[in-house]
Amino acid sequence: MQDTPEVAVLRLGHRPGRDERMTTHVGLTARALGADRVVLAGAATDRRESVAAVTERFGGPFDVTTTDDPEAFLAAWPGTVVHLTMYGLPLQDVEAEIRSRWLAEEAPDSDTGTPLLAVVGAEKVAFEVYRVADWNVAVTNQPHSEVASLAVFLDHLFEGRELGREFTDAERVVVPQAEGKRVEDA
Amino acid sequence: MQDTPEVAVLRLGHRPGRDERMTTHVGLTARALGADRVVLAGAATDRRESVAAVTERFGGPFDVTTTDDPEAFLAAWPGTVVHLTMYGLPLQDVEAEIRSRWLAEEAPDSDTGTPLLAVVGAEKVAFEVYRVADWNVAVTNQPHSEVASLAVFLDHLFEGRELGREFTDAERVVVPQAEGKRVEDA
Repeated sequence: MQDTPEVAVLRLGHRPGRDERMTTHVGLTARALGADRVVLAGAATDRRESVAAVTERFGGPFDVTTTDDPEAFLAAWPGTVVHLTMYGLPLQDVEAEIRSRWLAEEAPDSDTGTPLLAVVGAEKVAFEVYRVADWNVAVTNQPHSEVASLAVFLDHLFEGRELGREFTDAERVVVPQAEGKRVEDA
Repeated sequence: MQDTPEVAVLRLGHRPGRDERMTTHVGLTARALGADRVVLAGAATDRRESVAAVTERFGGPFDVTTTDDPEAFLAAWPGTVVHLTMYGLPLQDVEAEIRSRWLAEEAPDSDTGTPLLAVVGAEKVAFEVYRVADWNVAVTNQPHSEVASLAVFLDHLFEGRELGREFTDAERVVVPQAEGKRVEDA
């Protein structure tokens, strides 16, 4: 979001056929809940186009790209890596520290902060990812959903401010209604 | 969760083949993030078994059932109905009121509260659902994911306390780790 260091999401292990909707939901959740961009690993070109089409219609800024070499992307990341996994440390125990590093509150000489990469896997994640992550974080230590974990993580990181995020260059805008649907041309 | 009025989730419109993983993720997210039960509409027997198997392994209490008549289920619901939709009112504007109704804070004579049903659809939701809902609520007015919406809604309703929910009668327990995986027999 504006005025804060970059937050990107890396979606690992997309399997064509099997993961289409989950990967799309990861990308759309990243966009809706305040991330600046999503990087999809693997053969996810169709998913990239789905997410880009939503950005085209409902606004941005939001970038979506694919990578064939997620290991290299992770190794080259210039900031903090947070891997979301049910095996990690409870979100509520580490979120203040993560936010502090992200906003550089712990380094008062710096006003630039540290870019944050949130990593979500599909079925099985290589051990290397656990190793390179600065934090392995669990949104509960229960099995559920990478989409749910990403959503709660971003909402906690942004402390709910992302819910009021404004998008620019939209073609269409939803006007909130107590009942029914209202969509207007922007 | 314990000591609060019931929170149930109704998953509408499950389409066999197409919605298998999304419906499973809705069920598992409901369980992990503090709901007491999930009701799956349509031919979701396999999904019911997947969610029940996780409860068997990682603990409960959590109920999962199916219904062939979601309209009747909705009409018979004895409490509040919250329909999650991108067309609704912003979560941040209505969550305090919803929580207050749920906990019966607005009716000091009552200490029982009001059961809450959170409704999430698949692709297209009948207009009747918008009409019978006490609140149509948007977790952002952007297109993203019913799993993400449900996760953020429950986390806001429970004010994050669900992240520390304890499960009973588990066969296996994940022990949080800074790096790697540790699962123990309970």
